[in-house]
Amino acid sequence: METLTDKILSETIRVRPKESHKGTYGRVCLVGGNDHFGGAILMATEASVYSGAGLNTTLTDSSNFVSLHARMPEAMVADYTHHQELVELVAAANTVVIGPGLGTTTTSMTVLRTVFDTVKPDQTLIIDGSAITLVSEHHLSLPQANLVFTPHQMEWQRLSGIKIADQTDDANETVRKQLGGIVVLKSHQTKVYTPTGSFLNTAGTPAQATGGMGDTLAGMIGGFTAQFADQTKAVLAAVYAHSAIADELAQTQYVVLPTQIIHELPRFMHDHQH
Amino acid sequence: METLTDKILSETIRVRPKESHKGTYGRVCLVGGNDHFGGAILMATEASVYSGAGLNTTLTDSSNFVSLHARMPEAMVADYTHHQELVELVAAANTVVIGPGLGTTTTSMTVLRTVFDTVKPDQTLIIDGSAITLVSEHHLSLPQANLVFTPHQMEWQRLSGIKIADQTDDANETVRKQLGGIVVLKSHQTKVYTPTGSFLNTAGTPAQATGGMGDTLAGMIGGFTAQFADQTKAVLAAVYAHSAIADELAQTQYVVLPTQIIHELPRFMHDHQH
Amino acid sequence: METLTDKILSETIRVRPKESHKGTYGRVCLVGGNDHFGGAILMATEASVYSGAGLNTTLTDSSNFVSLHARMPEAMVADYTHHQELVELVAAANTVVIGPGLGTTTTSMTVLRTVFDTVKPDQTLIIDGSAITLVSEHHLSLPQANLVFTPHQMEWQRLSGIKIADQTDDANETVRKQLGGIVVLKSHQTKVYTPTGSFLNTAGTPAQATGGMGDTLAGMIGGFTAQFADQTKAVLAAVYAHSAIADELAQTQYVVLPTQIIHELPRFMHDHQH
Amino acid sequence: METLTDKILSETIRVRPKESHKGTYGRVCLVGGNDHFGGAILMATEASVYSGAGLNTTLTDSSNFVSLHARMPEAMVADYTHHQELVELVAAANTVVIGPGLGTTTTSMTVLRTVFDTVKPDQTLIIDGSAITLVSEHHLSLPQANLVFTPHQMEWQRLSGIKIADQTDDANETVRKQLGGIVVLKSHQTKVYTPTGSFLNTAGTPAQATGGMGDTLAGMIGGFTAQFADQTKAVLAAVYAHSAIADELAQTQYVVLPTQIIHELPRFMHDHQH
Repeated sequence: METLTDKILSETIRVRPKESHKGTYGRVCLVGGNDHFGGAILMATEASVYSGAGLNTTLTDSSNFVSLHARMPEAMVADYTHHQELVELVAAANTVVIGPGLGTTTTSMTVLRTVFDTVKPDQTLIIDGSAITLVSEHHLSLPQANLVFTPHQMEWQRLSGIKIADQTDDANETVRKQLGGIVVLKSHQTKVYTPTGSFLNTAGTPAQATGGMGDTLAGMIGGFTAQFADQTKAVLAAVYAHSAIADELAQTQYVVLPTQIIHELPRFMHDHQH
Repeated sequence: METLTDKILSETIRVRPKESHKGTYGRVCLVGGNDHFGGAILMATEASVYSGAGLNTTLTDSSNFVSLHARMPEAMVADYTHHQELVELVAAANTVVIGPGLGTTTTSMTVLRTVFDTVKPDQTLIIDGSAITLVSEHHLSLPQANLVFTPHQMEWQRLSGIKIADQTDDANETVRKQLGGIVVLKSHQTKVYTPTGSFLNTAGTPAQATGGMGDTLAGMIGGFTAQFADQTKAVLAAVYAHSAIADELAQTQYVVLPTQIIHELPRFMHDHQH
Repeated sequence: METLTDKILSETIRVRPKESHKGTYGRVCLVGGNDHFGGAILMATEASVYSGAGLNTTLTDSSNFVSLHARMPEAMVADYTHHQELVELVAAANTVVIGPGLGTTTTSMTVLRTVFDTVKPDQTLIIDGSAITLVSEHHLSLPQANLVFTPHQMEWQRLSGIKIADQTDDANETVRKQLGGIVVLKSHQTKVYTPTGSFLNTAGTPAQATGGMGDTLAGMIGGFTAQFADQTKAVLAAVYAHSAIADELAQTQYVVLPTQIIHELPRFMHDHQH
Repeated sequence: METLTDKILSETIRVRPKESHKGTYGRVCLVGGNDHFGGAILMATEASVYSGAGLNTTLTDSSNFVSLHARMPEAMVADYTHHQELVELVAAANTVVIGPGLGTTTTSMTVLRTVFDTVKPDQTLIIDGSAITLVSEHHLSLPQANLVFTPHQMEWQRLSGIKIADQTDDANETVRKQLGGIVVLKSHQTKVYTPTGSFLNTAGTPAQATGGMGDTLAGMIGGFTAQFADQTKAVLAAVYAHSAIADELAQTQYVVLPTQIIHELPRFMHDHQH
């Protein structure tokens, strides 16, 4: 297992080409946020926007539109219960993030199924939070796409069937191969299992042990995969950057809030581009 | 009566253990905020989040969801008139803060009774603002829990039956013993009566004599008791930190707003951890 | 006519007494903000809060509650079409500001009449914006109270009957005596006519010629009169501080926004207390 | 084709005259923002306010009122489906910006037609985003006014009939003459075609290739044309300032958000006034 360093940043965060436009930096759809967990999709969206994704659309419960725009006028919104809009917007995206604050109701399930039915093999689909729980509980077939799973240990237990105590690298890697794609297994030292190897993230701080961190990471992975061609490196760079920024902030803060990490992204990415 | 110093901070604010996750830092439910006083529960929530509590859920009038998320996507929300949700969320919490902006209507009373019927002896329950008034007026039986009362002098008169002029330490301590728990008696020099002694807070400034300070303190006590094992020290540290931050800000400000104190918490707690 | 200097600040902004509480610094009711001009009452409220008024309640169209709390959880809210609440809250205030964004509809008129019928001689009533227009057009009788009018030149023409070209100090002072109270006649060099003399404000900058400045000033006058005993000096200090802060900001800004002035108040008032 | 430099700023951004008031700096109406793209009109409005326009009114879907005021209490709001209000507010403006987030529905079309039927020859009308698409698709007659078109290359193809590959200066200038007014053709190096010559903007950075940049530029052109007499120079100065600020921010940021550019306007314009 390889340990991530800031080398992954300079390998991934390219200097932007002069002749480019917002389309060059990808379209991200962020799907989630029910009437209880709206904040989760707000943070995921904010993370994608500050990562530099070219266009961001948030598909969520309509009760979250106003709070989203009050924070982030840069994002577009649509109601995830509008089937046709959901289909069209997901189909037009480069990267789809589904799960932050999605919940586990019938509506959540309908939204998830629609997304799974819509994504195509050339799209990247990040499956986070409640979406992982729904996949696990309903034994959903996974779509053909560049899949990225971002479970914490209990969600991974549900998805992989491996109990937390038994989540060894070998066991995890075996299930990852069955699932396909990339698994970001979040804990105080996050591990990333990919088709080209496994990676340990030693960055990170207990100061970031607070609600919303996972939603933020999912949004960052959305923003990074939309912009950077190598999808594995994009995931790894997002994981590392998320923790490395937290480490910087924790030098002066007892707790680091998700939105504080987000707001550091433009500066941090500037300093690590190559 | 012992005078609080910054010693209480270093005795309480532990360096966070490396191997930990958001669950390590507790679940806080914040209950309050009717259609007039929504700002109170927003400030209490913001204070708990910035204190570092691991997970924060705000149970409030649904009209407050959008303004809460516009400020604080880190918090989850639920409607406090949904009985079942209120019961489940309160039951799952380590610390419950009830009162900021709760009001004194029939709805307020129903919510308060549900919380009292739900909390268990191992939970900490902070009873603030209108909740104190309701307890006093309706002679409610108090639940078995780690109780923390945060009255100002008039609320204490209502609760204890001791007129403001007669609120001597002896009289206050006698009623505290009958009530059980901890009493934070707020005034320009707040006193804290606990089972292990009484404490005088000489920190604090008239610059913080503005609406919302009490809501902020209640939220901080919520965040501190959720994180730090010694509940008495957690309360004392929150009381002291609230005033000490205000003292710092008052060196350059004529008035110190509650939200300004809140935003200093991560830095302040960093500088006083041990 | 006397020219205002920063002497008015040190004469007015007292060092806060150690033994005090939020009640010491007054209760302000801010009444206005219809469904088009909600921002006006938001700015007036924000100005009153940042001036240091102890308790602030905003009576406005209910559509403005969420945006107000998203910016200012420190303020309480009520619907100005609820007659009984309007009466009770206005009756409990030290200072009432009416007019910012109130509009000139039947509802505006009903609200204005209720406020006029409720205020008592020991209260301060600031009559701003559309409230001045309504008084002028409907020839309303003014209530017995400490009245402060804050017209710009056209509103003063409507209220006083003096055409802008004829608004000499003598003519203005004559009408002020008939009206009673204080007149703050806003222009690029604001003049304040009071029972104890007239004052010229030479501070101020064209950088502050932007919408919302008047609403902000009305809110500051609300906050200052609620805190400082000498009502004339409180008005003069608010007028001067509003312009002096703008002058400071204009040293580095082409335009100065109302909310930027507001956010400087705690620091500015700290530096000029005595 | 002349290359823009910061000379256009000092030629345009006049030192504000001491004797002036908010009316001196113009009234801007910003029309757009449906229930999906509300953020676009929020950013346009914010850009106009921070540019220093005297009075700003946003005509939008009513679902955007709260998020707008939460960010920008300085702006007034009205529902763009209220025909009479739309007519009155547009008629009273110096500059009208139509298009950001307007969409292409029947409602969008009705709003656009009303604006076209209302504007008068002495007004400036900025036609942006979906408004350009609607004009193109419905072959709408353009009103007599100081027209400013702000298409990106695909919108220009729709409007001019010139395919992107064929968009030479000669071809573009020929169509501009037919349309009348000014064409701001946005790309990584924006070109501005005017009655008095064509201009190349070499400022700008790929860091600003993100959603909302066009809305922000439209709002800035609104604010600049409302304040500065020479409409061509006002457009050129807005185009240049938008990119020059982004260049400054990109020295430390990997991505530059539209709202970050907006917030730099007061300082930037101060430093380049003459």
